[in-house]
Amino acid sequence: MTQLQINEVAPRDGFQIETTFVPTDEKIRLIDALSASGLTRIEATSFVSPKAIPALADAAEVVAGIQRRPGVGITVLVPNLKGAERALAGGVDEINLVMSASDSHGRTNLRMTPEQSLEQFAEILAMVRSHSRGSSVFINASLSTSFGCPFEGEVPQARVLDLAGRLLELGVQGVTLCDTTGMANPAQVARLCEAALAGFPGTPFTLHFHNTRGMGLANALAAWQAGIIRFDASLGGLGGCPYAPGATGNVCTEDLVHMFEQMGVATGVDLDALLAASARLPTLVGHETPGQVVKAGKADRRYPMPSR
Amino acid sequence: MTQLQINEVAPRDGFQIETTFVPTDEKIRLIDALSASGLTRIEATSFVSPKAIPALADAAEVVAGIQRRPGVGITVLVPNLKGAERALAGGVDEINLVMSASDSHGRTNLRMTPEQSLEQFAEILAMVRSHSRGSSVFINASLSTSFGCPFEGEVPQARVLDLAGRLLELGVQGVTLCDTTGMANPAQVARLCEAALAGFPGTPFTLHFHNTRGMGLANALAAWQAGIIRFDASLGGLGGCPYAPGATGNVCTEDLVHMFEQMGVATGVDLDALLAASARLPTLVGHETPGQVVKAGKADRRYPMPSR
Repeated sequence: MTQLQINEVAPRDGFQIETTFVPTDEKIRLIDALSASGLTRIEATSFVSPKAIPALADAAEVVAGIQRRPGVGITVLVPNLKGAERALAGGVDEINLVMSASDSHGRTNLRMTPEQSLEQFAEILAMVRSHSRGSSVFINASLSTSFGCPFEGEVPQARVLDLAGRLLELGVQGVTLCDTTGMANPAQVARLCEAALAGFPGTPFTLHFHNTRGMGLANALAAWQAGIIRFDASLGGLGGCPYAPGATGNVCTEDLVHMFEQMGVATGVDLDALLAASARLPTLVGHETPGQVVKAGKADRRYPMPSR
Repeated sequence: MTQLQINEVAPRDGFQIETTFVPTDEKIRLIDALSASGLTRIEATSFVSPKAIPALADAAEVVAGIQRRPGVGITVLVPNLKGAERALAGGVDEINLVMSASDSHGRTNLRMTPEQSLEQFAEILAMVRSHSRGSSVFINASLSTSFGCPFEGEVPQARVLDLAGRLLELGVQGVTLCDTTGMANPAQVARLCEAALAGFPGTPFTLHFHNTRGMGLANALAAWQAGIIRFDASLGGLGGCPYAPGATGNVCTEDLVHMFEQMGVATGVDLDALLAASARLPTLVGHETPGQVVKAGKADRRYPMPSR
């Protein structure tokens, strides 16, 4: 059975919405711990304007400061050409471009329609290809609202597949299908994943779920049953959805790893190392995290018989 | 596609561990609201010693006070012969016996080994059958720790299936396989459900999950894929696990209904009515509940475009 590949996104998707600035050395310490745990990919930060996201203003310092390990790809979110240039200069392994599958979410979140995003991606790809070290950098694109848009509702599967195809034609090497606001359900996930794998064989698709409505692990299960082996996940379940106050964030890395390992599906990840890293998060961000296994312990936890 | 049958257990499994006594009239009001929502079965209370569980000391008043609706079975948990007599006197539709699949959990929780529980069930069944109105009462048995025991660990599937078979031979009409402390994973759930349905065709099996480690809905999905259509669930995700402090409780009724309805699997339940009832729970129990959809809204919730 193929081993899962988990892309840890807490340092980017998690920290970006925190009101507490996590000190740069703490970010580096966390990423180093994660990268020693067996995760294959870590989204370390975002090369975005510090005005837009002050929490990630230290992107360059973080990328320069972390340990690099063979087999652990360091990826960064990049919103535009300037961000891509900074990312290349920083020496990352992967650039993760982001666009929305829906017009209204694109305009709101990125100030660009999907068509405008695709045009911009063409420029970014040309720049990366012309860059001396660009040839070795993997280009991924994340398709937000692939399972629904909080403004316009349903996003047709045909539209998502069409955009994925156009991304691949542009030269993007991997596509992440994102359930940005936790609208996906397992039946929909199975349909889209099956169609994507059948339509673009060999393409590395990653699935990005939020646990907004409690379906995060059920959706991951459905994606895996459909043949997906790559998942974004966030330590402690950090992250969130600005349109669902009170809801939990990204699907939780250690809960995802725990489920699959319990099922006998190898992840290559040292779950105890993840749990130790997760246990430190409340101190870093100043609040409890939604992760469950860090509170309950693993399923093989044993209790002494109570004396009576 | 067969409609799901949801057994609401919050009034019993949820309230029994609350430190705040929910007033009897509030319990009745809640059960009446739930029974108007399309749920097919409600576990209204437990006829247990008031000393053992003071929170359910008003069991007889609750059963006497609730509205009875055609199509909504009122079931009660019964730990012993005396409880069964009280339940019959109260005029319930179903009695839910409980035993453990593991020796150590049985001794700790019920002061009985599985063998002793089976002997006791034989007496209870004989009493019920001899009772003038007993012939119309459905007898279910819940098998605790069917997916693992917090004291001894693995509970072999063959043992669970053997106990289910012996329950059915005794005259029990339905069996609930309980993941009492949230140890189950979807692969294990699929295996046990497939084996149970194949081994005892026609038997109404119910699955009872806790969300202790975040896998509640994933396990329900796996059970449904294996052919299970009956689930226990608790409004708001009330309930808990004494061996997993900080962990969430039973799988949440409205989150379960929401997932299946989003998948196009009919539940017959009015989700808005459930959500309205769930929104009142924090007032009744004095704390937030783990349910997610009541906080985030349904997946089809739409937001206005932010002005900028």
